[in-house]
Amino acid sequence: MRMVEIIAKKRDGGELSEAEIRFFVEGYTKGEIPDYQASALMMAIFLRGMNEKETVALTMAMADSGDHLDLSSIDGVKVDKHSTGGVGDKTSLILTPMVAACGVKVAKMSGRGLGHTGGTIDKLEVFPGFKVDIPTDLFFRNVKENGISIMGQTKDLAPADKKLYALRDVTATVDNLSLIASSIMSKKLASGADAIVLDVKTGSGAFMKTEEDSEALANEMVSIGKGAGRKMAAVVSNMDQPLGLAVGNALEVKEAIETLKGEGPEDITELCYKLGSKMLVLGEKASNEKEAREMLEDAIRSGRALEKLAQFIASQGGDTAAIYDTSKLITASIIREIEAPVSGYISSIACSEIGMCSLILGGGRVTKESDIDLSVGLVLKKKVGDYVNKGEALAVIYANDEAKCREATLRFLSSYSIGDEEVTHQTLIKKEIG
Amino acid sequence: MRMVEIIAKKRDGGELSEAEIRFFVEGYTKGEIPDYQASALMMAIFLRGMNEKETVALTMAMADSGDHLDLSSIDGVKVDKHSTGGVGDKTSLILTPMVAACGVKVAKMSGRGLGHTGGTIDKLEVFPGFKVDIPTDLFFRNVKENGISIMGQTKDLAPADKKLYALRDVTATVDNLSLIASSIMSKKLASGADAIVLDVKTGSGAFMKTEEDSEALANEMVSIGKGAGRKMAAVVSNMDQPLGLAVGNALEVKEAIETLKGEGPEDITELCYKLGSKMLVLGEKASNEKEAREMLEDAIRSGRALEKLAQFIASQGGDTAAIYDTSKLITASIIREIEAPVSGYISSIACSEIGMCSLILGGGRVTKESDIDLSVGLVLKKKVGDYVNKGEALAVIYANDEAKCREATLRFLSSYSIGDEEVTHQTLIKKEIG
Repeated sequence: MRMVEIIAKKRDGGELSEAEIRFFVEGYTKGEIPDYQASALMMAIFLRGMNEKETVALTMAMADSGDHLDLSSIDGVKVDKHSTGGVGDKTSLILTPMVAACGVKVAKMSGRGLGHTGGTIDKLEVFPGFKVDIPTDLFFRNVKENGISIMGQTKDLAPADKKLYALRDVTATVDNLSLIASSIMSKKLASGADAIVLDVKTGSGAFMKTEEDSEALANEMVSIGKGAGRKMAAVVSNMDQPLGLAVGNALEVKEAIETLKGEGPEDITELCYKLGSKMLVLGEKASNEKEAREMLEDAIRSGRALEKLAQFIASQGGDTAAIYDTSKLITASIIREIEAPVSGYISSIACSEIGMCSLILGGGRVTKESDIDLSVGLVLKKKVGDYVNKGEALAVIYANDEAKCREATLRFLSSYSIGDEEVTHQTLIKKEIG
Repeated sequence: MRMVEIIAKKRDGGELSEAEIRFFVEGYTKGEIPDYQASALMMAIFLRGMNEKETVALTMAMADSGDHLDLSSIDGVKVDKHSTGGVGDKTSLILTPMVAACGVKVAKMSGRGLGHTGGTIDKLEVFPGFKVDIPTDLFFRNVKENGISIMGQTKDLAPADKKLYALRDVTATVDNLSLIASSIMSKKLASGADAIVLDVKTGSGAFMKTEEDSEALANEMVSIGKGAGRKMAAVVSNMDQPLGLAVGNALEVKEAIETLKGEGPEDITELCYKLGSKMLVLGEKASNEKEAREMLEDAIRSGRALEKLAQFIASQGGDTAAIYDTSKLITASIIREIEAPVSGYISSIACSEIGMCSLILGGGRVTKESDIDLSVGLVLKKKVGDYVNKGEALAVIYANDEAKCREATLRFLSSYSIGDEEVTHQTLIKKEIG
């Protein structure tokens, strides 16, 4: 098999065989196939497309390029959840204890975030003493005994995807549905879950800007997962404005705790019920979503979901005091209201700009090596459709530096559009698949 | 300017500006833009195409990536000729002394061949003592005094093309009209001629297999040349069978000498008159092709064309004895007829297979470092449309090794199709442009 012939086949619109795709992925991972041939193939795939069979083959080959996390020693159906990411998305912090409280085993390997705020791992470190680098045997014991554990990525999961993604990033071959779907799914498949629930974001703050593209990506990933023998479900959810009200690590943890107490913002609460219901059904803990939702509501009402979070944090060395008194969470030195410059209805929020504000304040990573400030961020007071009076707070900003606070405040103000006409509130769940 | 944005623009079908194309070509030549970005751009260009403006810009940028040969000290219009290459194509050897004998100045830099036979430079070395590595001042003096000189490539002509072609070769991005045209024309433009006559081959032994593609390539190159301010003309000529009868270095030199004596095969003679007429017109030595042809016929008839070859060979140290007695040319140790296995009409010849026979015998280069055997090759006795009797010679093979002779003979026989039905002879000149 010769790489130049594989490139030519795809260039001419042909279907690559599983053997050809494996030849490429294995050769590229080993460094036997050079970057310049891989990028030519990526561009040919970008412009010629891949069918479902090819996309599944690429995903499986990338999943097989490194280690697989073996969860077979844990009883029951292991359910994972993946979000394509957005501003204010703290669902994992809420969902994992919620579903664990209902009997679904959570055994997750997570990475650190790159972008406007930290990832789940960064947010968990808001609890003093919490350790992500725990030994594998403790990880498995925690899952078996408590039903939940999250550890930092120790295994070499899907290294082909890592290498290929870095190449795509510099060769203008990122925004292709099949390539995005196979990149996400290769890591999910290597992570060992039996069932996967996907939350595909759509809108100005998401990777996919249109509902059509988001739905297509969701369908593509569901197909891949099913092709690989996994149980799959997906939701397309709104990201035309931040999810919930808090943006920033400790602020998001606070909102997650409030949501687990039943006191969270309506949109994030609703999304967690929706995703959690699908996880319970796929995890065979409920026979339908209605029954699942009742179980989840009971887990919140009874305090079991919050207790499950506390148990999980404590099992990995974390201080749980803040779970019962959120005033104990780390906080910023400058806390200031951002006032509305005019009265009117909020007609839109440039969602990714709100993410930029958090990044400016120091809440996110610019490069993989950046340190992040867990205390900074924003808490919105008004969202799209709300009415605001001039001088009323649009948000509260949390900062540790006056210059950054000023820059973020100005950027924040320019991201809000306020008009005279009444505006309807945005729909959260745009589409459900499975 | 960022390379990834240039790639994305072409990926999405946009038109690249001259500044963007220069940024790429200059950055890539200097090694500042990596191969993997260049190959992604090449694939995007392959699949999205380039318009005439972009193709001219790419050609000019590649021509400007290295040295230009400055021919301005030579009087008159300098006319160059380029053939896209094929089997048995020895036109340069015949044409250059023909047009020089009619007053067109020939000042050529040539490379060595890679493929089934050597290039013009290799063939000139059939004359003992002939030197291609002559000092530049001798090159210019010969052109001014004798009207003809050909030297090995000393200057760094179009290094961007050299680097890019090597990359395209391993990334399945060779066969694109705009890229082929700009590759050829960048070298021609850097070679300093005022006017260029192109011989684009078409058929089974050519790079372009269909007449349509060949004509499109010819038009593309003519457009580029005109866009760069050069006078242009082109011919699309048949390469469904070898040109002339001889294939192999010394054998082709012999045929060239015979043609300069007016005793060559009809097809190559005709092609040289056609290309030569266009060169004389563009070179302002004749006012139309009819007048030009009469001048060229007179140069042959009078012996002036042959004398010009001898003068040229002698001026670069070569022994001219073989020009007057071709039996003095180097010859192979095994000379054997290949007999027709059946009687009938030659219905087709797999032209590139005849090239392969020459390569097998040692007459061409497999890699740039290969040595070539100047004495080996084939002389056809029958071409398409001819009738052959069983046992009659189809060709004479010239070899220096029994095993290679056997292999080439078998390959030769399988390349000839012989049938019952009468077949028309092939048309040589398919199309003329300008």
